[in-house]
Amino acid sequence: MKSIILLGNGGHCKSCIDVIENSDEFQIKGIITKDKNFSERFMNYKILGNDAAISSSFDKDDFGLIAVGQIKSAIKRVLLFDLLRKNKIKLATVRSKNSLVSRTALLGEGTITMHNAIINSDAKIGMNCILNTNCLVEHDVTIGNHCHISTGVILNGGVSIGNQSFIGSGCVVKEGITIGDNVLVSAGQIVMKDLASNTLHKKILD
Amino acid sequence: MKSIILLGNGGHCKSCIDVIENSDEFQIKGIITKDKNFSERFMNYKILGNDAAISSSFDKDDFGLIAVGQIKSAIKRVLLFDLLRKNKIKLATVRSKNSLVSRTALLGEGTITMHNAIINSDAKIGMNCILNTNCLVEHDVTIGNHCHISTGVILNGGVSIGNQSFIGSGCVVKEGITIGDNVLVSAGQIVMKDLASNTLHKKILD
Amino acid sequence: MKSIILLGNGGHCKSCIDVIENSDEFQIKGIITKDKNFSERFMNYKILGNDAAISSSFDKDDFGLIAVGQIKSAIKRVLLFDLLRKNKIKLATVRSKNSLVSRTALLGEGTITMHNAIINSDAKIGMNCILNTNCLVEHDVTIGNHCHISTGVILNGGVSIGNQSFIGSGCVVKEGITIGDNVLVSAGQIVMKDLASNTLHKKILD
Repeated sequence: MKSIILLGNGGHCKSCIDVIENSDEFQIKGIITKDKNFSERFMNYKILGNDAAISSSFDKDDFGLIAVGQIKSAIKRVLLFDLLRKNKIKLATVRSKNSLVSRTALLGEGTITMHNAIINSDAKIGMNCILNTNCLVEHDVTIGNHCHISTGVILNGGVSIGNQSFIGSGCVVKEGITIGDNVLVSAGQIVMKDLASNTLHKKILD
Repeated sequence: MKSIILLGNGGHCKSCIDVIENSDEFQIKGIITKDKNFSERFMNYKILGNDAAISSSFDKDDFGLIAVGQIKSAIKRVLLFDLLRKNKIKLATVRSKNSLVSRTALLGEGTITMHNAIINSDAKIGMNCILNTNCLVEHDVTIGNHCHISTGVILNGGVSIGNQSFIGSGCVVKEGITIGDNVLVSAGQIVMKDLASNTLHKKILD
Repeated sequence: MKSIILLGNGGHCKSCIDVIENSDEFQIKGIITKDKNFSERFMNYKILGNDAAISSSFDKDDFGLIAVGQIKSAIKRVLLFDLLRKNKIKLATVRSKNSLVSRTALLGEGTITMHNAIINSDAKIGMNCILNTNCLVEHDVTIGNHCHISTGVILNGGVSIGNQSFIGSGCVVKEGITIGDNVLVSAGQIVMKDLASNTLHKKILD
């Protein structure tokens, strides 16, 4: 098993731990937190220190995974990604055994595919993405870097998404739609038209 | 295998039978129905009698499961739950092999986790709940007793739900939302704000 | 393993190939395309010719599967179905190993059950249907012939759907609802009332 260190200790990190424990590929060595003073353990794993401890915590063979959540903005995840890169730390590509990834799909480094996610034929996913629980990425979908495809999202065939975008929980995106960079779509939207970069799509139904 | 007796013989009971047959934990001994005169078998299992036959039908080692559905009100399921308790009958906690329950999640007695449901890290679910097919209960969610989380519902991280509430099919609940007791949310709602106890949330989109 | 020939070479066909490769039941012999001139291979399988080559491509033991998608109309799929029938070609009933079909459910010939689809107790599905990825067909649902139940659709208990209807991605249909023939429901609709035959239901939320 490969050794992995997680960056982050919030709720998303808990889910990441569940996914990693469920796979047979990585063993968790410990957690990096942004807090200065934190209890010694998180979900039973050792706290190795805060961001300042990154360079000293990673051995040559350790993989890193950014386990910080992403809703309003990808900035934290991008900064941590750059920090790991600067320190020449390899990023893990993590996949739940309870997910399904087509043999013809491609997943970038640092991307996590969570429980019951399906990544279908010829899908191409960038780096440092969250493909969250129960999401469905259909055939021929392309997704850039640092995106969060949230819980239960359905991206139908041929959808294209840029970098650093967030598709909220339960959204359905029509086949062939193009979504730009830095787009935020809030939960439960039915996306039937293209969405330009740097736009916010929010419609509260209740 | 443990022996189980089901209370109810409607559509939800059919789904419960499918889940129990799919697991290796329980063997169905028979069905209790509210009808006085019912055909001898249901889905190939013996009808043991109606509610009046509860005390005589259960042996010491038999588990009970309330297999009556719940949409508009939890009352029937609560009454049967109290009846089983009064008769000192153990309630089964049933789980489809095709569901996924985190090692850190807790499920109360009498609760059924149906096919493809996911119960994530540190979720805490009460007694006598239905976690219906394809529902997603994310990390740190808490749910009280006698709730029905319907088919395909998404409860995001940290959502809290009281007792005897119903979340309709395909609903998406935003992370951190609090929903009270006796709340009824009809199908397909996107819940973005807290919902007070004893309220009805219905919006027909079509 | 049985031998199968696919009709169609679009995006839906890619997903069908992924499902068939994932099962252990069929081996793909080749693809029939409507194009006259097409590259020699599709997803690494041989192109056998266009529709005119149907009768010459199938050996006695080969099964056929219509792998053309269906959104606005079922016509193409119906015509190909009739063409196969006329040529006395057997239609394959295909099922992803990652789907779940109740022992009491019935699936007609030519119907494909894709990844993570769930077909529950006593459901009855006709011929030449697409039960697309992540769809949920609950107990006692009946579906006619040539229907497409799209990605992530939830059909609750006892729903009834006629022939040649399309239920769009992410739709939720309330329990007991009746939907007629040739009905088109666009993505993300919450169907709370019966829908008459030959009607279109579209409501763009964004």
